[in-house]
Amino acid sequence: MTVRTGNKRSGRIKLGMVGGGEGSFIGAVHRFAARMDDQYELVAGALASDAARAQSSGKALGLAPERIYDNFVSMAQAEAARPDGIEAVAIVTPNHMHVPVAQAFIEAGIHVICDKPLALDMKQARQLEKQLARRKDVIFALTHNYSGYPMIRQARAMVAAGELGDIRVVQGEYPQDWLTTDVERSGQKQAQWRADPARAGAGGCIGDIGTHAYQLMCFVSGLQPKELSADLASFVKGRVLDDNAHVMLRFDNGAKGMLWASQVAPGHENGLQIRIYGSKGGLQWRQEEPNHLWFTPYGEPKRLLTRGGAGASAAANRLTRIPSGHPEGYLEGFANIYSEVAAAIIAARKHRRPDRQVTFPSIADGIAGMSFIQACVKSSAGNGRWTKL
Amino acid sequence: MTVRTGNKRSGRIKLGMVGGGEGSFIGAVHRFAARMDDQYELVAGALASDAARAQSSGKALGLAPERIYDNFVSMAQAEAARPDGIEAVAIVTPNHMHVPVAQAFIEAGIHVICDKPLALDMKQARQLEKQLARRKDVIFALTHNYSGYPMIRQARAMVAAGELGDIRVVQGEYPQDWLTTDVERSGQKQAQWRADPARAGAGGCIGDIGTHAYQLMCFVSGLQPKELSADLASFVKGRVLDDNAHVMLRFDNGAKGMLWASQVAPGHENGLQIRIYGSKGGLQWRQEEPNHLWFTPYGEPKRLLTRGGAGASAAANRLTRIPSGHPEGYLEGFANIYSEVAAAIIAARKHRRPDRQVTFPSIADGIAGMSFIQACVKSSAGNGRWTKL
Amino acid sequence: MTVRTGNKRSGRIKLGMVGGGEGSFIGAVHRFAARMDDQYELVAGALASDAARAQSSGKALGLAPERIYDNFVSMAQAEAARPDGIEAVAIVTPNHMHVPVAQAFIEAGIHVICDKPLALDMKQARQLEKQLARRKDVIFALTHNYSGYPMIRQARAMVAAGELGDIRVVQGEYPQDWLTTDVERSGQKQAQWRADPARAGAGGCIGDIGTHAYQLMCFVSGLQPKELSADLASFVKGRVLDDNAHVMLRFDNGAKGMLWASQVAPGHENGLQIRIYGSKGGLQWRQEEPNHLWFTPYGEPKRLLTRGGAGASAAANRLTRIPSGHPEGYLEGFANIYSEVAAAIIAARKHRRPDRQVTFPSIADGIAGMSFIQACVKSSAGNGRWTKL
Amino acid sequence: MTVRTGNKRSGRIKLGMVGGGEGSFIGAVHRFAARMDDQYELVAGALASDAARAQSSGKALGLAPERIYDNFVSMAQAEAARPDGIEAVAIVTPNHMHVPVAQAFIEAGIHVICDKPLALDMKQARQLEKQLARRKDVIFALTHNYSGYPMIRQARAMVAAGELGDIRVVQGEYPQDWLTTDVERSGQKQAQWRADPARAGAGGCIGDIGTHAYQLMCFVSGLQPKELSADLASFVKGRVLDDNAHVMLRFDNGAKGMLWASQVAPGHENGLQIRIYGSKGGLQWRQEEPNHLWFTPYGEPKRLLTRGGAGASAAANRLTRIPSGHPEGYLEGFANIYSEVAAAIIAARKHRRPDRQVTFPSIADGIAGMSFIQACVKSSAGNGRWTKL
Repeated sequence: MTVRTGNKRSGRIKLGMVGGGEGSFIGAVHRFAARMDDQYELVAGALASDAARAQSSGKALGLAPERIYDNFVSMAQAEAARPDGIEAVAIVTPNHMHVPVAQAFIEAGIHVICDKPLALDMKQARQLEKQLARRKDVIFALTHNYSGYPMIRQARAMVAAGELGDIRVVQGEYPQDWLTTDVERSGQKQAQWRADPARAGAGGCIGDIGTHAYQLMCFVSGLQPKELSADLASFVKGRVLDDNAHVMLRFDNGAKGMLWASQVAPGHENGLQIRIYGSKGGLQWRQEEPNHLWFTPYGEPKRLLTRGGAGASAAANRLTRIPSGHPEGYLEGFANIYSEVAAAIIAARKHRRPDRQVTFPSIADGIAGMSFIQACVKSSAGNGRWTKL
Repeated sequence: MTVRTGNKRSGRIKLGMVGGGEGSFIGAVHRFAARMDDQYELVAGALASDAARAQSSGKALGLAPERIYDNFVSMAQAEAARPDGIEAVAIVTPNHMHVPVAQAFIEAGIHVICDKPLALDMKQARQLEKQLARRKDVIFALTHNYSGYPMIRQARAMVAAGELGDIRVVQGEYPQDWLTTDVERSGQKQAQWRADPARAGAGGCIGDIGTHAYQLMCFVSGLQPKELSADLASFVKGRVLDDNAHVMLRFDNGAKGMLWASQVAPGHENGLQIRIYGSKGGLQWRQEEPNHLWFTPYGEPKRLLTRGGAGASAAANRLTRIPSGHPEGYLEGFANIYSEVAAAIIAARKHRRPDRQVTFPSIADGIAGMSFIQACVKSSAGNGRWTKL
Repeated sequence: MTVRTGNKRSGRIKLGMVGGGEGSFIGAVHRFAARMDDQYELVAGALASDAARAQSSGKALGLAPERIYDNFVSMAQAEAARPDGIEAVAIVTPNHMHVPVAQAFIEAGIHVICDKPLALDMKQARQLEKQLARRKDVIFALTHNYSGYPMIRQARAMVAAGELGDIRVVQGEYPQDWLTTDVERSGQKQAQWRADPARAGAGGCIGDIGTHAYQLMCFVSGLQPKELSADLASFVKGRVLDDNAHVMLRFDNGAKGMLWASQVAPGHENGLQIRIYGSKGGLQWRQEEPNHLWFTPYGEPKRLLTRGGAGASAAANRLTRIPSGHPEGYLEGFANIYSEVAAAIIAARKHRRPDRQVTFPSIADGIAGMSFIQACVKSSAGNGRWTKL
Repeated sequence: MTVRTGNKRSGRIKLGMVGGGEGSFIGAVHRFAARMDDQYELVAGALASDAARAQSSGKALGLAPERIYDNFVSMAQAEAARPDGIEAVAIVTPNHMHVPVAQAFIEAGIHVICDKPLALDMKQARQLEKQLARRKDVIFALTHNYSGYPMIRQARAMVAAGELGDIRVVQGEYPQDWLTTDVERSGQKQAQWRADPARAGAGGCIGDIGTHAYQLMCFVSGLQPKELSADLASFVKGRVLDDNAHVMLRFDNGAKGMLWASQVAPGHENGLQIRIYGSKGGLQWRQEEPNHLWFTPYGEPKRLLTRGGAGASAAANRLTRIPSGHPEGYLEGFANIYSEVAAAIIAARKHRRPDRQVTFPSIADGIAGMSFIQACVKSSAGNGRWTKL
């Protein structure tokens, strides 16, 4: 089947969604993100694995009845067959379903926007990678949404431009507190599947949020990690997967790093932070205050750079909607990924590549993330042995 | 003409826009806000006073050609006549046009969402007030958007519940720096009309942003201001309207307050802040960090309340989309006003009132704001004489 | 009687103290400050008005029995008569005693370091001023200690050097919360005399802390205030003096300012803050984070200047003891005043003037403070009438 | 020789100092700390290894000529022989001299206050430990000064009282930036000896500041570290000792930790920070804002506890001099160690033990620190092998 995009398409991108039905957090987030810049229109969905919930969820979103599907296979087929079928699909299921769903839509020539981590395991991830290598006409984006924040883009551009000199140290952290107690056994849906290896994969906290921090550390530093040493822990009794991860990293240029991810750190809501230090200066960014970026050139006064403000660079301004001091937040950062994908899809309609500054995370980030999870689990099982990435 | 809403309407609210064409800041903001929660659909517009710009702006937004209007009068008539005509209009023109435009649409039975300040002067404001008194079937909302932030709602609810005791002191401030130099003479469109009394009204900074701070001080404290003493200044040479305002306030319960608004305060981007103190505790909120609210009960440790986090109240949670630590920003706060208006419009379709917790700013806030501007100008002209509100 | 200093003196300065006995807060602070840089030695005291407390307080401080005095008159005489008598005295009594005590020691040729505000009323203040005009050999310092913080010195130097351009707006505030309830009636000694006009003078909060903010606004801006409009309030039932003060200010260069002082603002411990804005940039400093100074040049990234760090100027470095990142606090700032006075005393021993950068507050600051209190009280009594300073 | 303290002593403690001459940073700090609470009097010193500098340094401090010594051996002997000889000595030399000097004074029955780290190597450390086991009459204190901050004491007390539940995660970090370039080769004295293994020992940054973070992690958590995995680096060309250290830790109760110490992290002045998380809550403290302690009980609003403020505990209040909002800083924290040692010395005069809440760091902390350095170096040399402590 040929790709569903082509020069016959125009206007807003027709979008489908798999997963994300009632009670889902991330499904709603994807819909906000798709809507933000008015480039997508949600028209179809297989929103839950349970048929009744799939129906009620689709109805609640105002989908046309014939485009509310009970399963993703029939959805892929039916949508591919429609002249007005979806051009892209958002996959927001638990981790184990990401790849099977993606494969079905890729096969149908439909672009994919997939939540992270990429897959249940590396085997799945590699299958998808192969398929995408065959289907270069299909766009695949992974929503490592934090890389969509404008000041993260600026940080990356500053590092690339050498403003920090040679990078020496990269510190990432991502503490949360919502799994401090065993909420997975008290019926909290979000917690349930994340605590289940059959649905979440081999990584708990390291997969759910550690991969975000890792992706950001690589994305901003532009460095290639070489090996890591990990110490994973499950502090809550009865929990199988890790809820706290300590990781030391070595990069190919000789830089070193640390990564701490935790879901049992009371007081932290969504404390993703990245700090990067080179021979000439440092940068610090915290997700909970995303419009700010600290730049500390060695030997000069510390500078607070603000989204849209003095000192904001072109890399940040590209993704900036409103003036400085008017905070943009998580949904706007997430939407930046969607908008970059939209730019790619629209370019693809004319068989072109998008503006080269479009840098949404893709299969490579997904493979890297799976490799990170796998290495962490292996290193930790080997008592912290340094493990190649 | 009867109101355009009624039980025949369903689905998303069809929205028109007057003003907000290319180069407008606030027009785009209104569109983001309308789109956020998927309750509106922009279908018509008279987006600029200049016909060519009105056309190109409408085209850029993907409006149907026949619903791109050159002026608001023909738009009000034509839309009112269409079976699928707009149910609501957003007015995002310079201040002097707010009332004439609003009157045309109200007359046509179309709900109005209007930017602030309400009017060019009190005379205009009173005319509109009278018209609305006649047309109780039409909903009128004024986008004092900052009152839409969840933690502002929580602050208001806490004060109302007596958690601060008797309110004694209310400190508001709104410093910016974008008019530090005479940008209005360098072709900056936003600055031009704001610096022109014929389009902005008698207040410069006091009207543009002082009214926001004032509205918030009243909204959160629940107090009725009684009189004020103002000292307005124009620091930039050649500027006619004030660019800095110092105001002292007295409230009817004996509380006192201060308000500082400035557009010549280098380092401030959009520094709206409110602090309120009672016999039992204090609250502090800053717009640039809107997900946080400091609560300082007297004699107890200071508490940082976070949107979506522990300590967040029902009043905040009603307007919360995503979990704590995932920052919501300016657009989300603005969108809360649109969503509350949507709730009111949908209720109105069935001739009902919305949930009583829907508290978007309305004509009363508009009149209060105009009264504030007028009193500031008068007091300042009278060398700070205490002037009734 | 000639001055007690002269070229026969050497080594550490022998210091006496009046007031500051057991239970005093500020007496202990003065002793810490005098000790900090090892330039003073406390050898005599009339530490309390009550003889028994004077004795026990002196003993507790290890004073020689013959140098523990029951009253300041005999202390001034006896110390002046001793060959090893004190060279300077610290006055830390309630306000109404500052001038009588100072007069006795000045008459005896002993240098005076006096707590603020200067006097009970302007009459007292003017008498002291006259006496000092006659006794130019005696050094008189007023402990407006906040002007001793290094980053305040830097702020002042930056303004003087024109780094902010023409000053337009000066915002000062000093909120505290310790008088939120009527602690003066629950036996709190500090509160008792401050609430009593016979001992505190005509200003409550405006005299106790408002004068500090005012002194700092003038010290940093280098501007001369011309007139003010004040609205004083006493929120706690039964309190005679003001516990909250709102003041608008006009300076002789056309700049405008606001000052808020409050002792009924729950959540504020010692929230002195100064912000100053000119045509080219802004500065912000908060007493509770005294090692930091924000400098916001218009159109450039915001800069955080740190004591001892990159960007710290000579004016700050003169008063810096330890490296950046090792916080200096309130006692160190206070001690800077003592050390500057020591430099003046040591210079005076050789009939010289100290280094011209020594800028401790003196009688002029004291007169200015009394004038400020008087103008605030008068303006407020006149319903906020603009009152000359 | 018997101990120099006994019931014949009274009044302020006579103090000597070894090292700390002109150009020393830490010598001056010890003198400030000793002076702060007026419990010590500096009367003797061997302030530099160079005789001329020893003389000029002693003179500058106003020491009596006969008590300015050229070397510590003669100083220990001479002071022990004087009836008014020193009761305690402060050792502020480079690391390799700590133990030899301490041994001489301990042998002479003189109490020792020694800078950290304890020794050049573990061999030296063990020798000192043995000597102290014999001379139980001599007090030995190690100036891990950061444990003297009031809010650190409160944190420790809160953990001990179970307010955090079972401790799970302990995160320590101590970034600085002053060795970002090779300042040791540009004549910076502080940097020179710290970069020289013969004087600093086997640890660079890990010894100089890593030990501080480590001591604090243990002090606050009350946990016993079991093993660690370290990755040390020297980023600056030509530097022999580490300038960046990444360490993972395991504690005997199953808790895990991370420690990052760096002297090549541009933007960090003295960024010591400790965060600790248990099953019931978290704590966070930053040295650069030492009067604040964040307490985040799980499921409750975050609380900011302030020194001297509401929520400050007895453990903090014991070491608090001035009210909340009046910041105490580094020197005050350091002085708390001196004052606790003074309490012990004064108790020892009467052959008593001090108040059991006196908890200054001692030989045990010193041994632990040396063990930490040794384990870090060994683990890092073994490619991060988990190494017992």
